[in-house]
Amino acid sequence: MDNKPEDLRARILRLSADLFATRGYHGTGLTELLREIGVARGGFYYHFKSKEEVLLEIVVRAIDEILVSSAAIIEQDPDAATKLRMLCDDLSQAIIENQAGFVVFLREYSALGDDAKERVLALRRTYLERWEGVLKDGARTGLFARRETPFTEGILGMWIYSFVWNRGSIEPETIASDLADFVLRGVCADVALPATTAG
Amino acid sequence: MDNKPEDLRARILRLSADLFATRGYHGTGLTELLREIGVARGGFYYHFKSKEEVLLEIVVRAIDEILVSSAAIIEQDPDAATKLRMLCDDLSQAIIENQAGFVVFLREYSALGDDAKERVLALRRTYLERWEGVLKDGARTGLFARRETPFTEGILGMWIYSFVWNRGSIEPETIASDLADFVLRGVCADVALPATTAG
Repeated sequence: MDNKPEDLRARILRLSADLFATRGYHGTGLTELLREIGVARGGFYYHFKSKEEVLLEIVVRAIDEILVSSAAIIEQDPDAATKLRMLCDDLSQAIIENQAGFVVFLREYSALGDDAKERVLALRRTYLERWEGVLKDGARTGLFARRETPFTEGILGMWIYSFVWNRGSIEPETIASDLADFVLRGVCADVALPATTAG
Repeated sequence: MDNKPEDLRARILRLSADLFATRGYHGTGLTELLREIGVARGGFYYHFKSKEEVLLEIVVRAIDEILVSSAAIIEQDPDAATKLRMLCDDLSQAIIENQAGFVVFLREYSALGDDAKERVLALRRTYLERWEGVLKDGARTGLFARRETPFTEGILGMWIYSFVWNRGSIEPETIASDLADFVLRGVCADVALPATTAG
């Protein structure tokens, strides 16, 4: 059973993500990768044209998953603040379940070829447009402060960094709820900032 | 004058940062780098042992600069909110002035060797401890909400992503002030979050 084509393909993707995440894409040679995964060259080339194709699929899968789950969220009825919290929790969950995939997405994007980069950028843009839609909706109804900067890039960066750089000292669920709380406060319209006076 | 050793060294660093930022560290061969910069191999090796030494210095310089400026900020007297805003503005300014350096820091960290990584990590940690000190100080005095997650990693990610992924459509100064506002609201203790009701 373990040698069914689907299983080997999934295993190559999972273990390659771990290797790329810890040693870098360029730091992991194909020969080393095959040895560590325990797969013959023929088995690898049956599923993938190249190491780059593996990299691309790791990145695309990470984004694809949150594209599907975020689409289900924005189709629902609740107000923008609730949707925003759902997007926060969904992104946290995706990163918690596939941390290696998101580390690779974070660090190895520049190793992709031009066509692959374009594909990844388009998926990334579609995902961030979901967040932008909710943020704009909240600003339109007065729930959120209006700002020129689309915080979606920053939010994605905040999520990835918070999880990737957490060396196991904090429970992922705590990071998830703290981040959601931080973002909801950060976008709120009705915050009285503490008065600041220069020393 | 342009051929003084200091100038050539600075020029190699500046143009290498641009090349690494756009094509990636591994995507830029040494021969290509020398040709684009217009420096002879001998001139390069007079200043640097290797391409990796150039990478390390680009990253270290980016962090060193904010280490110096943030030290000056935390030595001052104002309350935590004011200090936090000063740290925000200082980081924005550093990224605006040296965007290529910060892109390289973001994307090419994993290309460094183990010793270099350790050195960079230590500098990075020292810098983030400055933010942590201010956040803890604000939580202690009740200005900021208490949270378990040290948001410093997330804040750094938010800054780098917001600037790096902004394709020139928003003025950097607008990003800077929006980010500072977002962070100050996000850490505030006295925010009434809008009530959220599902469906």
